[in-house]
Order: sequence, then C-alpha cells, then structure tokens
Amino acid sequence: MPKGRFITLEGGEGVGKSTNLRFITDWMRERDIDFIQTREPGGTPLAEQLRALLLENREESVDPTAELLMVFAARAQHLAQVIRPALARGAWVICDRFTDATYAYQGGGRGLDRGLIAQLEQTVQGDLRPDRVLLLDLDPEIGLSRAAETGAADRFESEKLGFFHKVRDAYLARAAAAPDRYAVVNAARPLDEVQQRLAVELESLLKHP
Amino acid sequence: MPKGRFITLEGGEGVGKSTNLRFITDWMRERDIDFIQTREPGGTPLAEQLRALLLENREESVDPTAELLMVFAARAQHLAQVIRPALARGAWVICDRFTDATYAYQGGGRGLDRGLIAQLEQTVQGDLRPDRVLLLDLDPEIGLSRAAETGAADRFESEKLGFFHKVRDAYLARAAAAPDRYAVVNAARPLDEVQQRLAVELESLLKHP
Repeated sequence: MPKGRFITLEGGEGVGKSTNLRFITDWMRERDIDFIQTREPGGTPLAEQLRALLLENREESVDPTAELLMVFAARAQHLAQVIRPALARGAWVICDRFTDATYAYQGGGRGLDRGLIAQLEQTVQGDLRPDRVLLLDLDPEIGLSRAAETGAADRFESEKLGFFHKVRDAYLARAAAAPDRYAVVNAARPLDEVQQRLAVELESLLKHP
Repeated sequence: MPKGRFITLEGGEGVGKSTNLRFITDWMRERDIDFIQTREPGGTPLAEQLRALLLENREESVDPTAELLMVFAARAQHLAQVIRPALARGAWVICDRFTDATYAYQGGGRGLDRGLIAQLEQTVQGDLRPDRVLLLDLDPEIGLSRAAETGAADRFESEKLGFFHKVRDAYLARAAAAPDRYAVVNAARPLDEVQQRLAVELESLLKHP
C-alpha cells in the first residue's frame, strides 16, 4: 500500500490559502494521487459545529482556555473520523490549518502557555505530526487588507493588528525551530512564484516518503 | 463579605436531581442566602451551545477525548463567566453536575484515563473544588425506568445499562475516597427522608464555612 502524506497549509488572514489550496489539489489530481482535502477547525459534522461556535461573534467574552479546548475537541474528532482513516488507507491529507494554527492563534495571539498546548497536542495526536507544513507568510497589514475584501469579519478576523503580528511571529518561530518540516513561503511574491515554490515542496514529498 | 459556598448536586439518570434542586434553592431562599443556581455542561450561552452539541443524538460516533474536551471547554467558560464571579462576591453556587460527573461519565462510563481528567481539572479549575458534593445514589435500573418517563432520550440517556452501572461505581468511588467532601444520599428512600438528609448537609455548610 502506498504511504500517505500529511500536509498542512498554514498562515494568517489574507495570505492566499484558498487559491493555493486549489493549486495543491490540482497538482495532486494531475498525478492521480489518492487524497482528501479538509480543514480545521472542522472536517466532520460535529467539528464543523464546533468551528461555527468558535468563529461566531458573540457578546459573551470567550475564555481563552475554553477556546483552546474547543479547538482540540474538534481536532480529536477530526483525527478519529477523517485524518487517521485516510492516512491508514495510504491517502494523502491536505489540511487547511492544523495544530500550528493553535500555537499561532491561541499560543501567540491569545498568549496561552505553550506547554499546555503541547500537552493537549500529545493527548489528542499521540505521535502524529504533519509530514510537511506549508506556511504562507505575509505582513499582517497586507493580509488584513486583502481579507477585508471577502466579507464580514468573524470573531478571529475582528482581532486587532497586534494580535496578527503575534500570530505571525509564533508561526515563524515554529518554522525556525524545525526547518526540515516547514516550508516558509513568502506570500507577498507573485502567485506563480509562490506556486512554483509549493510545487517544489510537493515534488520533494512525492519522492521522499 | 460573607463567604460563598460551592455546592454540586450529582447523580445518574432518574435520581431526582430536579426535585431536589428545587428543595435546595427553596432552603436557601428561606434563609435569605445570596445564591445562583446553574448547571453543567452549560451555564453561559456558549457553554449551553456546547451542551446541545454534547447531548445531540448523531450519526457520527463521537470520539471520547473530543467529548471530554468539550465538557472541559464548557466548564472553563462557565467558571470564568459565572461560577468564579459569583463566589468572588460571596454568593453560594448550587450547580447541577460538575467535574464529578466527568469522572463518572467520561471516566467511568467511557473508560477514559482518570489521570487525563485530573490534568484537565487542574488546568481549568486550578485549586477550585466544590465545598460539598451532594451525590444522589440510586440503582441505575430504577433510575432509568424513572427517567424513561420524561421524554426522548439524549445521547447519554441512550447508553445501555452497563454504562450507568459504571457511572454509579465511579461516583461512589469518588465519594469513598474523600468522605468529608461528599454526602452520599440514598435516592431510593422516600423523598422527605432524602430532603431531611440534604437539609442536614446544608445546615452544616451554613454553620461551618
């Protein structure tokens, strides 16, 4: 049985994840790779309901630990129902955001203890980690102005610029600490250049399981 | 400022929690005690939404760890928004189920590791524990036949008898391990006897902060 790959696409608001996700799935389709495309938080009916609760703008201020536990609850469900079964049958998994986003948004953005995140990561994932994290990196000022064109802001998108600088810094710190697993892609560059870079990463994953 | 008390009412299905909650709040009202009555999972708009997701009968099988994290997410929110502020102003809190229910349902019923539950308890509650746990204890066969009269079964009520025996055993084991904090009340006895017993516990809490 062919070995699957677990690829996550990460980045802040307005970095171009949707466009590049289409590029990645087209690339896999052209190569007849068995794959699933999914996202976090979400990916199952229950996890999508949790996503909706997380994104909803609300009067009640949301306790950061409650938010963190909801994210990992959705992840546990997603792993059990979707990601682990796909990898077990040898499929590739391309996931729009995963645990790096938790380190970036809840760790960096909200300032939650990284040790607690690591503990929950171990509880929920065991030893499962993405084979490659494709991090689309962009100055949040540019990203937010791009994202503002796509409609009403959810509870995260409503955060202030300083929040997104902390999110970006946390992403970059994660990548710097494990350069073999991360590809930091400069999303400020022209799209064809970004996608050439993504293609190189995908080719390398294809050749080196 | 008067010191509040944190009281939880626990027990399986059909043990008479609703009836006895009314008795307890009447008792407090008669004594002009400043109190709030609340419940878990729930107690805030977000936590009630999480409760609805937890109880909903669904086709998707729910990962036990996802369920556990949802319970603690709701608890973190409830503590931050409702329970801690009430105790801080000196009010009594009477809560319909709390962390003992997590040890009973997710620990006993689902078989999740008690160490993991204890870790999440510490993360979410710090050192906060109920001052007194009023445990209504009843043979699950009797409880389930009583509960069956109250309408359609939710995702927990739909479990089999063996599940509820494990829930009961876990509750009783918790109580046996810390007899000073637990009052185990035989809910098979006539109601006035049950409530006499509850009144004794409440009087003792009133006299000994």
